[in-house]
Amino acid sequence: MATAEEVKEQINVQTAAIAALKKANAPKDQIQAEVKKLLDLKAQYKTFATNNNGNQKANANTGSKKNFTLKTPKGTKDYNDKEMAVREKIFNTIKTVFKRHGAVTIDTPVFELKEILMGKYGEDSKLIYDLQDQGGELCSLRYDLTVPFARFVAMNGSKYQNIKRYNIAKVYRRDQPSVARGRMREFVQCDFDIAGVYEPMVPDAEIVRIMKETLTALEIGDFTIKINHRKILDGMFEFCGVPKEKFRTISSAVDKLDKAPWEEVRKEMVELKGLPAEVADKIGTFVVCKGGREMCDFLEEKLGSNATAMEGINDMKLLMTYLEAFDVLDKISFDLSLARGLDYYTGVIYEAVSIAPPESGKKKKSDDEGNVGSVSGGGRYDNLVGMFSGNRTVPCVGFSIGVERIFSILLRKMKLEEVKANEVQVYVCSVGKGLLTEKMKICKELWDNDIKAEFMYKADPKLDKQFQVCEREKIPYAIIIGNEEIEKQVVKIKDQTNKESVVIPLERKKK
Amino acid sequence: MATAEEVKEQINVQTAAIAALKKANAPKDQIQAEVKKLLDLKAQYKTFATNNNGNQKANANTGSKKNFTLKTPKGTKDYNDKEMAVREKIFNTIKTVFKRHGAVTIDTPVFELKEILMGKYGEDSKLIYDLQDQGGELCSLRYDLTVPFARFVAMNGSKYQNIKRYNIAKVYRRDQPSVARGRMREFVQCDFDIAGVYEPMVPDAEIVRIMKETLTALEIGDFTIKINHRKILDGMFEFCGVPKEKFRTISSAVDKLDKAPWEEVRKEMVELKGLPAEVADKIGTFVVCKGGREMCDFLEEKLGSNATAMEGINDMKLLMTYLEAFDVLDKISFDLSLARGLDYYTGVIYEAVSIAPPESGKKKKSDDEGNVGSVSGGGRYDNLVGMFSGNRTVPCVGFSIGVERIFSILLRKMKLEEVKANEVQVYVCSVGKGLLTEKMKICKELWDNDIKAEFMYKADPKLDKQFQVCEREKIPYAIIIGNEEIEKQVVKIKDQTNKESVVIPLERKKK
Repeated sequence: MATAEEVKEQINVQTAAIAALKKANAPKDQIQAEVKKLLDLKAQYKTFATNNNGNQKANANTGSKKNFTLKTPKGTKDYNDKEMAVREKIFNTIKTVFKRHGAVTIDTPVFELKEILMGKYGEDSKLIYDLQDQGGELCSLRYDLTVPFARFVAMNGSKYQNIKRYNIAKVYRRDQPSVARGRMREFVQCDFDIAGVYEPMVPDAEIVRIMKETLTALEIGDFTIKINHRKILDGMFEFCGVPKEKFRTISSAVDKLDKAPWEEVRKEMVELKGLPAEVADKIGTFVVCKGGREMCDFLEEKLGSNATAMEGINDMKLLMTYLEAFDVLDKISFDLSLARGLDYYTGVIYEAVSIAPPESGKKKKSDDEGNVGSVSGGGRYDNLVGMFSGNRTVPCVGFSIGVERIFSILLRKMKLEEVKANEVQVYVCSVGKGLLTEKMKICKELWDNDIKAEFMYKADPKLDKQFQVCEREKIPYAIIIGNEEIEKQVVKIKDQTNKESVVIPLERKKK
Repeated sequence: MATAEEVKEQINVQTAAIAALKKANAPKDQIQAEVKKLLDLKAQYKTFATNNNGNQKANANTGSKKNFTLKTPKGTKDYNDKEMAVREKIFNTIKTVFKRHGAVTIDTPVFELKEILMGKYGEDSKLIYDLQDQGGELCSLRYDLTVPFARFVAMNGSKYQNIKRYNIAKVYRRDQPSVARGRMREFVQCDFDIAGVYEPMVPDAEIVRIMKETLTALEIGDFTIKINHRKILDGMFEFCGVPKEKFRTISSAVDKLDKAPWEEVRKEMVELKGLPAEVADKIGTFVVCKGGREMCDFLEEKLGSNATAMEGINDMKLLMTYLEAFDVLDKISFDLSLARGLDYYTGVIYEAVSIAPPESGKKKKSDDEGNVGSVSGGGRYDNLVGMFSGNRTVPCVGFSIGVERIFSILLRKMKLEEVKANEVQVYVCSVGKGLLTEKMKICKELWDNDIKAEFMYKADPKLDKQFQVCEREKIPYAIIIGNEEIEKQVVKIKDQTNKESVVIPLERKKK
């Protein structure tokens, strides 16, 4: 960072440069550009002059007080080494499952042209972070990974009409943050999507299988995958007498049933959204229904006369057959109260709910206790790519895992202090003086052989101080050298678990 | 995304809600908040009315033309599946080396409070991306990973006074992008830093060792690590008669010597920066000097009388001893022309330069050909943490690897088309009709046993189409089932390399 003096010097240099340009009759706009730079420098200098706690002093290390807030922006946080060890384990577990199903990964920028995101998130568009217009394109931080994926598929023409891809990356929402509930403005999503024209319900079934496999591998405890179908919802609304233009708004009311009781949702439908009471009551008889495969027959009996509903029911019959082959039925709940907020879903929708047991030794207070809610969700969105590519549509189906929820569930089960953040296997210790470079040489040998090793950055440390590090960092082996070992060209290796030692000859590889 | 109809419906709902609130004599600010939402909805509806190509049509899938540019923002790009396979290999190689040295990782947000970044990058501050002020804090996208790391260390008080951490993440610079030269506005940096008060030059030596290990592991070909010391540079400037306030600006002129000849740099010093010609010439006699360990003696002879220079020279002597123990001396060039632009360095500085051989079959045109320049750089910055924490300073040393440069070097050596992006090991194929769920069951068995497997999402595919996929995706094994195999409860496994087959009994695990 520049000090005030340096900026002053830069101002002098820049003044001289402008004078030289003028003398040489340089083009006007070139001179103007240089004058602009000079003015910027002068403005910069001014901040030093008006601020006694400026960088000049801090740089000179005079111990002046900081003159700004030392924090991360609202709704964001740092993850320390132990937290990151847990998070990386989550990411790796998820990647392993995703790759098992043949997925590749693609990477898209953190920000997109603003117009790409516009009109995709309905009312939530106000939560999009915009970049400042600094003389260029108008850009916004991505709100999810689905729209950038659809933009990528649309942009690459026929090349990526078929793709199974995953993406683990940060997304941004200017929401009211709630750190306690793991709700952040910057957070990580893990998405898996399948694009392409395929046999009906086959990729959909694999997506649900991957949900089961991932959540099982993450060891978050018991969970249920709720499933429903947009066409069954629409058919049911039609059957009950909801006017077509109210399908989405009534659907978003139904979506609240996982948090609110039916009475409240009914009130919203009737009083706020103007639905006749008898229509709402009819909906009420449906949304309480949930079950397994047998729901298909039940619904066919009830809604068989409705063409839209029947399309959905037939899809679900096929899906259930495939889910049986994939051994997922035990986790499934065909749940008519599942609606999912996002408007772009067109077919099967699903949502996984974690059912954490009550904390040990405590009685469960209510059915809802320990229910941290949705940990994963998704569905089929056949028209999103078409919004970008005009007449060429690419059907897609996918799901997303909310890492922050998974992270908070896992943190409840472990003691963060006990997490080993580094992976060091061997700590190279010395007894006696003047052995620093000897320890370095041994570390070099270890590193050359891909063994994770460290030593104390101190010339002549005491042995107990070195053992304390082994203890604290949970390093399984210590190598100890002293003058005797060096003379005999041996090292002592101590197993930190059972405290046993062996002495082995030190054979250095000749290169 | 909401259609025009849905927004209109929302407007009606909202109007009714406001009427209800007024009737109920609700608090004024509550009503005002709801009115605000209504106005937002009305504004949203207006965009539909004025835009015939709105989402309503796209959503209805009528094939209307897109009304926006389908691209990523300037200076950013998508990385497709094959590019990402190469990039992930780079990241994993780097992580393996970093972890071998005991590093942990921490994660900081993509954006920081604007004031955190202010005054850290001198003239380059104009390249910082700001977020729009949407009624909250003023934030900017991070420009590097060093300042966020220093902010983290300062924020965490005594808890992270000692830390070895790496971070592989994206940073943002509103620079003039040059895709050909791998210069982007969004790009990935891999940083390794060591914070803490330690024995002089010990962590510095390990950093240089890690540079060597990483670049060797990345297999980018030959490279040299240039080393210099800020105090030697300052001492040399003092010795040559440069006024103290011009140290940094003359240093940044010296920094250009890797791209420009001495004559040009001399001209900048004398004509633009007002240095007496004889002072510049004296500098000229130093900056041509480079070599190995013997440079320490040479410099002691020349600059021994200068206290600042001697501090640097003594550091370098010690460093050379440690670098010998770490077996790094063969890669080192003690180079007095290395200055490094960033102002925050206070001690040893280094920069690795890749020396790619000329493309096979072609003659090397000049010494510079194939020299893609700096692939990694860093140094000691003892005062940066202090800028955030006031009187508590934490000395730091670190380096950064430019992934985009490494990526472009590796791409020159391989054919991207031939990269296997997915990791599928087994493709489950069928001969004959009606075997879709049978294939699904076999995939399920494979997945249960952590084998990466896929099948064609088609009811009755032809065998040659399935083999074509194996071929194209470089899948090593095919499992083939037909009615005969199902009857006998066996599967045929075909090795795609040597085209040999074996038939084995299918034993399904009972669960």
